[in-house]
Amino acid sequence: MDMISSVKNDHVKQWKALHRKKGRKEQGRFLVEGPHLISELTKSDWTVEELIMTDQQADIARKLPQVPQTLVSENVFKQISETESPQGAIAVCSLPKMEVPIEAEKRYLLLDRIQDPGNLGTIIRTAEASGVDGIFLGDGTVDPLNGKVVRSTQGALFHLSIEQRSLHEVIAECREKSIPVVGTSLEGDDYGDIEPRNSFALLMGNEAQGVSDSLLPETDFNTKIPIFGQSESLNVAVATGILLYHLRRE
Amino acid sequence: MDMISSVKNDHVKQWKALHRKKGRKEQGRFLVEGPHLISELTKSDWTVEELIMTDQQADIARKLPQVPQTLVSENVFKQISETESPQGAIAVCSLPKMEVPIEAEKRYLLLDRIQDPGNLGTIIRTAEASGVDGIFLGDGTVDPLNGKVVRSTQGALFHLSIEQRSLHEVIAECREKSIPVVGTSLEGDDYGDIEPRNSFALLMGNEAQGVSDSLLPETDFNTKIPIFGQSESLNVAVATGILLYHLRRE
Repeated sequence: MDMISSVKNDHVKQWKALHRKKGRKEQGRFLVEGPHLISELTKSDWTVEELIMTDQQADIARKLPQVPQTLVSENVFKQISETESPQGAIAVCSLPKMEVPIEAEKRYLLLDRIQDPGNLGTIIRTAEASGVDGIFLGDGTVDPLNGKVVRSTQGALFHLSIEQRSLHEVIAECREKSIPVVGTSLEGDDYGDIEPRNSFALLMGNEAQGVSDSLLPETDFNTKIPIFGQSESLNVAVATGILLYHLRRE
Repeated sequence: MDMISSVKNDHVKQWKALHRKKGRKEQGRFLVEGPHLISELTKSDWTVEELIMTDQQADIARKLPQVPQTLVSENVFKQISETESPQGAIAVCSLPKMEVPIEAEKRYLLLDRIQDPGNLGTIIRTAEASGVDGIFLGDGTVDPLNGKVVRSTQGALFHLSIEQRSLHEVIAECREKSIPVVGTSLEGDDYGDIEPRNSFALLMGNEAQGVSDSLLPETDFNTKIPIFGQSESLNVAVATGILLYHLRRE
């Protein structure tokens, strides 16, 4: 197999363009980096278009026998990699159809302007683990196909439906289908007073500002996690975990 | 006031040495970066030795009137800063006495080999918010005065007692004082079956490997958080939040 060793190669330029949202949108694909994540990808129905590797990685090649493989030099790989310790394997994956059907009796997570990629990835991982049926990302939330987000999900991204959509619309549709919409607000009631339930739509907000004032009045009710120390707030991924696990307890 | 504008200045070299654990230990001090964190520091009993600033920051100077201030050039500041978007103020703080008394009827968090600075910082922030009385860091846990840890705590670090100590000793002393020690293990019982309680010592483990096999048999009992999706595990800071908030519910 030939090896690409020039960073000026056109393929290399195209791959590097996938570091940015604009490039992902234009090319209709995104990068998944590292053997563990690629392995999770092969267990999903997402489509891998090609594999970029620094040398023959028998394990990964065996899992994706039909996928074209390209060998690149260490130096080229460093350019395409978005991590500090590159592990020699990147998959180029087609942008999936991102739609979440809203159905009665299901569990949803709605995210309003989450801006930190690590937070969004950890939230997706947590939501998938807690058994949520789908996630809606409102305007102003970071792109879920950003490399840092993808890595922080640890692969959970490939096992869960996600849609970017106006949260006003999502809240209205949930309420039509009798799914209780639970917002989070410092003025809400203690979450411990909420009974666990089979179906809900939990609305979490921006790291610094919380849920938008325009969304809070549209929920069925709002809740908060009490703070017993001097901290002003919890990290949003931690708060999401506490609420999702509380709401679904039997 | 004079301004330091050479990166070869001896003070600059000393400050930069505080980026490493060795330098912090040798000099007996560490860095706290950013106006928000410095403001949290002034609300605590930790001792600020000096302030490093790019220009006169009236707000911060007013909060710490007795503390010597040094002006440095933008270029020098970038060398001392550990963040991507430096905000022009760093405090040099004395290493505090790090001891946690173990007393009956209190709540403790024990951390075994937490390695990611962001995770440790978020765990400290979460523990402080949940009302924990002290945190013990076992061997192999990242230095809590590492810059990334300090920033991730969002200042909670300054409002909570932390001690680095053998967890075998800590567990033995907790059990002597009738504080139930709760370990986390994939073989444990569902955490939902544990009754909330006034006093506990929760033991969380390494991101990839969990709690050491040598510690698990020493606990009173072990628990786990069920996974309802395909993820293998939760992020350790999220898991800590779920368990701490469950254990203390009234």
